[in-house]
Amino acid sequence: MSVKAYGAYTCDNPLEPIAIRRRQPGASDVQIEIAYCGVCHSDLHTVRSEWQGTVFPCVPGHEIVGRVSAVGGSVSRFKTGDIVGVGCMVDSCQNCASCAEGLEQYCENGFTGTYNAPTADEPGHTMGGYSERIVVDEKFVLKITHPEEQLAAVAPLLCAGITTYSPLRHWRVGPGMKVGVVGIGGLGHMGIKLAHAMGAEVVAFTTSDSKREAALALGASQVVVSKNKDEMKAHSGTFDFILNTVAASHDLDAFTALLKRDGTLTLVGVPEHAHPSPNVASLIFRRRAIAGSLIGGIAETQEMLDFCAEKGIVSDIEMINIREIDTAYDRMQKGDVKYRFVIDNTSLAA
Amino acid sequence: MSVKAYGAYTCDNPLEPIAIRRRQPGASDVQIEIAYCGVCHSDLHTVRSEWQGTVFPCVPGHEIVGRVSAVGGSVSRFKTGDIVGVGCMVDSCQNCASCAEGLEQYCENGFTGTYNAPTADEPGHTMGGYSERIVVDEKFVLKITHPEEQLAAVAPLLCAGITTYSPLRHWRVGPGMKVGVVGIGGLGHMGIKLAHAMGAEVVAFTTSDSKREAALALGASQVVVSKNKDEMKAHSGTFDFILNTVAASHDLDAFTALLKRDGTLTLVGVPEHAHPSPNVASLIFRRRAIAGSLIGGIAETQEMLDFCAEKGIVSDIEMINIREIDTAYDRMQKGDVKYRFVIDNTSLAA
Repeated sequence: MSVKAYGAYTCDNPLEPIAIRRRQPGASDVQIEIAYCGVCHSDLHTVRSEWQGTVFPCVPGHEIVGRVSAVGGSVSRFKTGDIVGVGCMVDSCQNCASCAEGLEQYCENGFTGTYNAPTADEPGHTMGGYSERIVVDEKFVLKITHPEEQLAAVAPLLCAGITTYSPLRHWRVGPGMKVGVVGIGGLGHMGIKLAHAMGAEVVAFTTSDSKREAALALGASQVVVSKNKDEMKAHSGTFDFILNTVAASHDLDAFTALLKRDGTLTLVGVPEHAHPSPNVASLIFRRRAIAGSLIGGIAETQEMLDFCAEKGIVSDIEMINIREIDTAYDRMQKGDVKYRFVIDNTSLAA
Repeated sequence: MSVKAYGAYTCDNPLEPIAIRRRQPGASDVQIEIAYCGVCHSDLHTVRSEWQGTVFPCVPGHEIVGRVSAVGGSVSRFKTGDIVGVGCMVDSCQNCASCAEGLEQYCENGFTGTYNAPTADEPGHTMGGYSERIVVDEKFVLKITHPEEQLAAVAPLLCAGITTYSPLRHWRVGPGMKVGVVGIGGLGHMGIKLAHAMGAEVVAFTTSDSKREAALALGASQVVVSKNKDEMKAHSGTFDFILNTVAASHDLDAFTALLKRDGTLTLVGVPEHAHPSPNVASLIFRRRAIAGSLIGGIAETQEMLDFCAEKGIVSDIEMINIREIDTAYDRMQKGDVKYRFVIDNTSLAA
């Protein structure tokens, strides 16, 4: 079937209307009419071919929410009319040790990304959520129980939410812990909300003094301007865990120095240019670690959505019409968004 | 009291005989006639002032074994004639959270090193094991239960042994795990023996093809020449844990790439020049970590000594006369020792 979408035929053109093919739902498939799609920095990197390996035409979008319009014969968990979500993955090998543990994001044969990944479907690579409709195996479809009026603000939970929730859970963030969140953007603002909801004392780190009030409103108990050495020094050796959402190259030592013995600094963004090499003595003399974390598994994504529904957590968003996407990209690159753009996918029909 | 020792008055002179002062044993002190002292790379760095902050005169040595010759009135755990050891620490604050957990090496007020650390004793800094006698608070004295004829080869356990044992234990190395040990020197050869004795499958990494047979004899089941990319690639993503004992600047990515999901690469040496900045994507896409670890606590050092005595583990050593120390340093710098020099401290009397 033909589906209206928005995408690019080359890396140096603006996005434009594009008709894509979706498969008819198979036995285990769920067909979803997309209501909203969040705009992730990865969308921009991919569609502008800033990372290697973009395949064109490219239709980005992996923060997808919508309503089920058809299900295959063997689908048991979803029915027409259900409100559902799709995140960064639409398939994985289902055979490796990581898949067996429900950690499809670490699939040892490589998960199938929601866009720009090889697939048997036309035209041979996946197409994402900047489209009216998507067809996904039910294993990769999430139930959404938030009130329907919050649906647009739920969309960013599917990437920004799970990317921050998973490391917070993996490193057992909870009451009695002091947790840092570096960067107050799409990911960081979710990290602050989630760590706060998990019961931790949250300190937000920003390079911009202007974000102080906003970070406090998100749930931080303190805000530290990381350029201010005295402010940083006051927190030396006091953090159990620091979630670093900043992908731009920066000095990691400033943050490892704030960790307690056995504390971990976890990175969720790949810098375009390498960070300065971390100080090894700072790791050795306090048995500290620098780690990485990638989105989250499907079961954990469902857990995160349920946790957010229970706690009343959604993303802070700015809604846009699909025709505003290039302007949104430009603003996102400048950090000029509080904190996530979300596309109203009904604008694709116009 | 005056004690014969060997040390340096300045960083650019060879070591020479030197008379030092030791305190009379206080109520909680143990006085030890030093039989043997291992030669650690830190000794060389300190006495040649290659690290900042060497205080002269400098008497190195923190792999000390010997016999108790006197104890203070409140000492309950040791008596005259006992065979004992002293490692890298002779005191700590005993008040902080780390000391309370028996992790004196991470003392938040800074432990007192066995040499070159501030002390109330003359001349204001500690003097190490290149000496006939030492006086140490019983809290920092270890019991040795190895057969007495192995005593010289026990000495290096007090630094090289515990520095490798502690991270292997902390990251729960045991049966069913595949563990790498990078570098086959003073630390690495102990890492191989210990990880093997803990029941892990051990792979040794070396830059020198000539060390293959020796590493297998130490307990490695395989030896990989790390310069050989094909050999390295064959182990991609298969290690639970890698202990990296190499302090010289080198490519860490070659080793993080060999870790499974959730694996850790732990560094125990501080490089003089920074390692190339680690690849963040390699951490993120497998939730890997790079960590550091420092020697071990006193309780854990005792556990290590008991474990080694039970398993019949000692260090492989070359015994030297104290007058050969500068030659030994030169050879150690070239990696020309299998695998640790140990001073026969009776040579101080001559």
